[in-house]
Amino acid sequence: METKEKKLSILVSNDDGIFSEGLASLVRELQSIASVVVVAPETQQSAVGHAITVHRPLRVREVEKDGKFFGYAVDGTPADCVKLAIRHLLPQKPNLVISGINHGSNTAISIIYSGTVSAATEGTILGIPSFAISLTSFESNVDFSYAAKFARILASTIIEKGLPKGTLLNVNVPPLPENELQGVMITKQGKSVWNDEFEARRDPGNRQYFWLKGELVELDVDEDVDQRAILNNKISITPIQFDLTDYKMLDELRKWEIK
Amino acid sequence: METKEKKLSILVSNDDGIFSEGLASLVRELQSIASVVVVAPETQQSAVGHAITVHRPLRVREVEKDGKFFGYAVDGTPADCVKLAIRHLLPQKPNLVISGINHGSNTAISIIYSGTVSAATEGTILGIPSFAISLTSFESNVDFSYAAKFARILASTIIEKGLPKGTLLNVNVPPLPENELQGVMITKQGKSVWNDEFEARRDPGNRQYFWLKGELVELDVDEDVDQRAILNNKISITPIQFDLTDYKMLDELRKWEIK
Repeated sequence: METKEKKLSILVSNDDGIFSEGLASLVRELQSIASVVVVAPETQQSAVGHAITVHRPLRVREVEKDGKFFGYAVDGTPADCVKLAIRHLLPQKPNLVISGINHGSNTAISIIYSGTVSAATEGTILGIPSFAISLTSFESNVDFSYAAKFARILASTIIEKGLPKGTLLNVNVPPLPENELQGVMITKQGKSVWNDEFEARRDPGNRQYFWLKGELVELDVDEDVDQRAILNNKISITPIQFDLTDYKMLDELRKWEIK
Repeated sequence: METKEKKLSILVSNDDGIFSEGLASLVRELQSIASVVVVAPETQQSAVGHAITVHRPLRVREVEKDGKFFGYAVDGTPADCVKLAIRHLLPQKPNLVISGINHGSNTAISIIYSGTVSAATEGTILGIPSFAISLTSFESNVDFSYAAKFARILASTIIEKGLPKGTLLNVNVPPLPENELQGVMITKQGKSVWNDEFEARRDPGNRQYFWLKGELVELDVDEDVDQRAILNNKISITPIQFDLTDYKMLDELRKWEIK
């Protein structure tokens, strides 16, 4: 009996923009297991959080690479890209949404600012198993190849195991060769915070402007958090969800008399 | 013995912009209990999520109303405003951060897209008790006065009771006169989702563009969720936090063999 194999379809987006090297590495690697569609922002969208565009319309442009169709560039945010892809551009829902490979980590409190995570979150909201993947280095000329290979392996595992409705994975891969990595750790979101500050400067017209700067300050004592796993040269995988209710506070609040 | 009363200080921000009526109502009402500082976006920032501005510097402008200093307008997002206020503009940390009053509801899944909520979230990240407040009507010419009064009452309650580190409140007030409201309900974030779609149009040059449209689809059966409380003419207060870890998925994932 002949069985017709149905090919996997994977939607890829990111927040570094459609021309980023991390996205290109991911697409090359995934093409061995799936039909890949790229819908990504026209430009860099770091730290856009889960923004969507509601006050202006979106434009879409077909982008070529090496003389061939590569993907759709959208003049919006990562969440816009995934929403527009699934609600309009794709003829049917993909089997998986992957966002990345981000150039730089997305751990601890940073994930609520992350455009990379927001693209995967939007996939999950729309009912599709999704993950975000980041290479934890801000150096230029980093090598995305093992992170891409790991994305392919994880994609196959998720296709086999499935993810619960409403849960996505946030993956961070240290920038090391495969043989120096110390395995995979399932982690919690870390509690590190930014010690950010603003640097005030004056423009040539003597008007003031402010640059945000700072770094993530390690606060965790537990070993099984994203940030610590990476410091120990491990790949971290954090399952996340977006019911933000603070359940342990409900009873306390019910005792308040607000008047 | 003479005691010197220390005056409360409240930072107010929003996502509708510094010239919005909801913010003006809130400021007027709070001035009876506190010294109020306004740091709000120059322009409308709805649905920006927890975006912060990292690739360009921020500008700040002093805004007057009725010939008097009213507040600082920032050319950034709600989270930018709160970060810049607390890290740079204010001489000392405020006792409370309040974001709003938003013109339109912020319930269910919408809170992850909400600029209003993100300003309060940023206050909480920076260690200050914070809440977001929205009037659940998108009609023009709505009356913010009772929502403002409720914000003042809640502010006093929070100052008295405190909020745990990492927890903020998301408040939604139906657009009704005080005597028609059916009280306060402590709620969970609802599970309603958007049935959004894109409407494709052509510009005069025959190029295509896409408008996002849609509405929140009621999916909850529980009574004690934000969306339901509002439908029942109750003020909803949802405690929220931003550890997104899906704790119940950790053990399951640890059983996966990823290879």
